[in-house]
Amino acid sequence: MKDHVRPLPSYLIQRYQGWKATTYAENRNWYRRLAEDGQRPRAMVISCCDSRVHVTSIFGADQGEFFIHRNIANLVPPYNPDGDYHGTSAAVEYAVTTLKVAHLIVLGHSQCGGVEGCHAMCTGHAPELEDKTSFVGKWLGILRPGFERVAHLPETERQTALERESVVISLENLMTFPFVKAALDAGDMTIHGLWTDIGEGGLLQYDPASGAFLPV
Amino acid sequence: MKDHVRPLPSYLIQRYQGWKATTYAENRNWYRRLAEDGQRPRAMVISCCDSRVHVTSIFGADQGEFFIHRNIANLVPPYNPDGDYHGTSAAVEYAVTTLKVAHLIVLGHSQCGGVEGCHAMCTGHAPELEDKTSFVGKWLGILRPGFERVAHLPETERQTALERESVVISLENLMTFPFVKAALDAGDMTIHGLWTDIGEGGLLQYDPASGAFLPV
Amino acid sequence: MKDHVRPLPSYLIQRYQGWKATTYAENRNWYRRLAEDGQRPRAMVISCCDSRVHVTSIFGADQGEFFIHRNIANLVPPYNPDGDYHGTSAAVEYAVTTLKVAHLIVLGHSQCGGVEGCHAMCTGHAPELEDKTSFVGKWLGILRPGFERVAHLPETERQTALERESVVISLENLMTFPFVKAALDAGDMTIHGLWTDIGEGGLLQYDPASGAFLPV
Amino acid sequence: MKDHVRPLPSYLIQRYQGWKATTYAENRNWYRRLAEDGQRPRAMVISCCDSRVHVTSIFGADQGEFFIHRNIANLVPPYNPDGDYHGTSAAVEYAVTTLKVAHLIVLGHSQCGGVEGCHAMCTGHAPELEDKTSFVGKWLGILRPGFERVAHLPETERQTALERESVVISLENLMTFPFVKAALDAGDMTIHGLWTDIGEGGLLQYDPASGAFLPV
Repeated sequence: MKDHVRPLPSYLIQRYQGWKATTYAENRNWYRRLAEDGQRPRAMVISCCDSRVHVTSIFGADQGEFFIHRNIANLVPPYNPDGDYHGTSAAVEYAVTTLKVAHLIVLGHSQCGGVEGCHAMCTGHAPELEDKTSFVGKWLGILRPGFERVAHLPETERQTALERESVVISLENLMTFPFVKAALDAGDMTIHGLWTDIGEGGLLQYDPASGAFLPV
Repeated sequence: MKDHVRPLPSYLIQRYQGWKATTYAENRNWYRRLAEDGQRPRAMVISCCDSRVHVTSIFGADQGEFFIHRNIANLVPPYNPDGDYHGTSAAVEYAVTTLKVAHLIVLGHSQCGGVEGCHAMCTGHAPELEDKTSFVGKWLGILRPGFERVAHLPETERQTALERESVVISLENLMTFPFVKAALDAGDMTIHGLWTDIGEGGLLQYDPASGAFLPV
Repeated sequence: MKDHVRPLPSYLIQRYQGWKATTYAENRNWYRRLAEDGQRPRAMVISCCDSRVHVTSIFGADQGEFFIHRNIANLVPPYNPDGDYHGTSAAVEYAVTTLKVAHLIVLGHSQCGGVEGCHAMCTGHAPELEDKTSFVGKWLGILRPGFERVAHLPETERQTALERESVVISLENLMTFPFVKAALDAGDMTIHGLWTDIGEGGLLQYDPASGAFLPV
Repeated sequence: MKDHVRPLPSYLIQRYQGWKATTYAENRNWYRRLAEDGQRPRAMVISCCDSRVHVTSIFGADQGEFFIHRNIANLVPPYNPDGDYHGTSAAVEYAVTTLKVAHLIVLGHSQCGGVEGCHAMCTGHAPELEDKTSFVGKWLGILRPGFERVAHLPETERQTALERESVVISLENLMTFPFVKAALDAGDMTIHGLWTDIGEGGLLQYDPASGAFLPV
């Protein structure tokens, strides 16, 4: 490891120093309070790793507001306490049972490369993702049931439809977690499904009554 | 699910509309470019879900710059292609093999509740985390080897030391991924370990030669 | 002072700009009318400083509707024109004699830290509030007669009872102001006592006939 | 009192029920958390009672964010622990010493009736305010030193200048409170002076270096 770990690129160090001298300096007292008193985030957001999705920017959220888990295609696997590592399930468990967040939000987005990969895999165009050793392929398998639901659509409509399925399936899978179900049933938490259009800056929310995504 | 999914709280809708009318409006052309051309992030950051850690803020990173995976305690499990869901490994695989990021950064932080939980578990004070059905406990098990390394320290020093081990162990585990090793060996990517102090706004980086975390 | 006054934290500036581009833009003509013609609020509300009490939200009140005075524990001291500074009395005088509001509303609330402090002080558990230099202790002294009325209750019921006394005592003290009494006697104004439950969103109003607080 | 306290006007009850069914319902879990865990506001705002100034709206602040004191002309009297009731001083003391807010903000505004009254009083046009029994006149006396500073200006410029003095004098008086000074000196709090234009939706901040109010 000694040969590979390097000092941080200087452009990042310079930017960090800019933040330290400005945003940090302006907010130091609040950050110290957060450090001393601990976090008390109001919501958990499950979002994609995609570099174009900035949930804190979209919602003007400052430090301390959102507990954020980010993975490929904002997917939540079904509840499966088999003793293996489940990073997403662990994050949800911590947010719901320890932090007791008031809102649980799944945020999908347009042009999602993960969703595109899932579509390619499900239509036989990405054999490399079907390889047993592909973590990405295996992970995107969570979204396979979504592909079944959009397979009848014209191909041009499938990407967006599947992106929205990535939100709906995550919501459905979240319902299989006993502690999520319990918090929802007790009225201790609300759950929300969103999809944002990167290029147009749009924001739609899942309406379970109609099954559609409607503008907020 | 129909009974539980709710419209987004109005304070978030108002803030979103504020973002749409300002930040989005100012950057619309860039966001459209990002939507049309796809993302091309320079770095992947693996960070904690903690609401007090805003890597984009600290580094002044705008949309498109960082591919960000966030999980509890910024942990990467060892390479283990066993056919199960591995959200973290999938994110790393996608960043390294598809996006071909230039930098891979692991960012730990002070006052980490996950690390605190690991310490409690390893010292026998958190039996609930040792329960087979605890996703959090199982996940924090990735950090157990780190506890062995800090167990000899006075208790007051262990939390910070273990937070830094969460970075070092993730770096070590990343080395076990063949595609990470290959990218590093080929000189196609650099890897970095960071730890930030929430209250003081400090930023230290791992120096493998000394084994210490030094100010950037 | 030069060393201490700082630029506003940027998260607030961003949110302000969001408001300017949305809520302000939508209502500009009304805000301009309010600026040109002056305010003509229908009611004065005396409420607590507590960050969890948003009277404008609870009553859907927009700019121009409520003249709002907020102090610790929504207290009004007795009429005492001794030539000292009386911020609360000045606000009431201005609302009643200059603005001629139609309704004067005192709004108490659950989990009131000020009321809790008064209880601690009256039971001898907060000597620091009895210190001559404690502004908070002196201010909460307005509520001392309320403590006498609830002291016979079991301790678990006293906090809520004392919160309601903070409303009743303010109403009683308001009656000692000649201009308040005159406006009420002339039928030019009505007066109201309310108490809101923060967690449950409840709203009760004081019924002088029974002496109880009843749901609206 | 029995004859004067009335049921709440029905238009307010209707609006409350609207809030209960919408905003409250959407945020119930967060409000419950706030009720159970207590408030932890990031900032205290000292603002005017004026019905046209909605600090929570301007800054998109939801329940729990700002501890708000509102009085006539957003004035803070000088530190004077004489054992009398000082509602403003009590609110500042509570925010700084108990809540330990990170930011202390004084917000003035255009078309301030209190400031206009002070100007009339200082130029001999409001003898009723000079009456010993006028709470408003006495209260506005806090701003008299500000009148001295703007008296040389053309009359058309004095109203705005005096509104800004109401902010500056409050900041100066805040510095006379030992606990405010101590929190500022220790770097535990920052202090800010703002002035908003009601009709234009503008927001300026006090720049102590130049003595001017500059756009944020």
